[in-house]
Amino acid sequence: MTVHGDSMSGNCYKVQLVLNMLGVEHRWQEMSILAGDTQTSAFLVKNASGKIPLIELDDGHVLSESNAIMGYLAAGSSLIPSDNFINAKMYQWMFFEQYSHEPYIAVARFIQLYLGLPEERLVEYQSLHVKGHKALSVMDAELAAQPFLCGDQFTLADIALFAYTHVAHQGGFELGHYPNIRQWLARITLQAGFIAMRSKA
Amino acid sequence: MTVHGDSMSGNCYKVQLVLNMLGVEHRWQEMSILAGDTQTSAFLVKNASGKIPLIELDDGHVLSESNAIMGYLAAGSSLIPSDNFINAKMYQWMFFEQYSHEPYIAVARFIQLYLGLPEERLVEYQSLHVKGHKALSVMDAELAAQPFLCGDQFTLADIALFAYTHVAHQGGFELGHYPNIRQWLARITLQAGFIAMRSKA
Ligand SMILES: N[C@@H](CCC(=O)N[C@@H](CS)C(=O)NCC(=O)O)C(=O)O
Ligand SMILES: N[C@@H](CCC(=O)N[C@@H](CS)C(=O)NCC(=O)O)C(=O)O
Repeated sequence: MTVHGDSMSGNCYKVQLVLNMLGVEHRWQEMSILAGDTQTSAFLVKNASGKIPLIELDDGHVLSESNAIMGYLAAGSSLIPSDNFINAKMYQWMFFEQYSHEPYIAVARFIQLYLGLPEERLVEYQSLHVKGHKALSVMDAELAAQPFLCGDQFTLADIALFAYTHVAHQGGFELGHYPNIRQWLARITLQAGFIAMRSKA
Repeated sequence: MTVHGDSMSGNCYKVQLVLNMLGVEHRWQEMSILAGDTQTSAFLVKNASGKIPLIELDDGHVLSESNAIMGYLAAGSSLIPSDNFINAKMYQWMFFEQYSHEPYIAVARFIQLYLGLPEERLVEYQSLHVKGHKALSVMDAELAAQPFLCGDQFTLADIALFAYTHVAHQGGFELGHYPNIRQWLARITLQAGFIAMRSKA
């Protein structure tokens, strides 16, 4: 299996964490989004969406979407709850991540860290902050009474939401008001197989 | 089980389709988003995100996110592929729907159908069109060689993407250029248990 990813991207980092935590053998094909590697015709043949992460099986089948890739790689492992309702809760948090968290927190971080917060994107940046803080509040409330998002079990939902939450400060989100999130972040770094995300050079 | 939903919302319609196709007994609690029913304190206690659809089990547990709810309701049915890779493909398309389709197509439709395309949102509307058409192109290409998004089997991925694609014209997306999508839409309306979405009064 080949994994196409940019190790500075949070969505790719999710896949890297699962591979490392479960010890899955793979070939990592490093790509640079900023250099345009996702928009070459060779890559667009594999994934018409032009996005990474993407995994390519030895039989040629490809799979995109970070959260779907994690589900595939972790099937049958302890990262996926076997109970039907808790399993659905895990997916609930992963859809929440893609719909109500990543589009605000990852984009605010991109504007601040990569673009240097240009004047003309300040209004957008501020509106991303309102929505990003709402997502963080929802998470913090859920984590008040339980160690992980789905309860006692560490699951893919925690990995999905860790990716951009642990670097949210790089997008201007101070986590001081979210004590439960801060403890949860620390708890995740203690999981077997945890590795840090590569930072901007 | 109680389902909280606004039957004019595409995300709620997905859940309605699954309930009807599988004949799941339930109580439908009709809510009006426009009237603010999702922002009452009684509702926010159930779902801090303030969003519908939401299901509430008889033991009080709640589950949000349309695509996660569908996964829960359809567990063990033919709407979910049993093969691990095809199952992951189904989730790939559902994450694609939430990240690369709904935020453009549903929002453009909202601006046109509900707000009457006000001048000050025209620039946003046009940029939603660029991204929405990209999503439709990706789908149309995939459907060139197979009847459904995951191959021969009709799955939750088709239901998730049907919801806003079949009303995309109400957001200004002409489907004339997407012959495979048009045939796929027709194919879905022929599935047992299919019901139409309630339209704007
Ligand atoms: N929903 C997708 C999002 C993937 C995504 O947006 N990837 C970015 C990097 S974080 C990308 O490939 N961007 C390149 C491009 O759009 O050209 C996922 O979760 O995998
Ligand atoms: N990602 C969610 C989106 C749900 C959503 O945005 N629901 C809208 C109706 S389509 C809503 O409840 N809006 C009310 C609000 O945000 O106040 C899902 O798929 O269920």
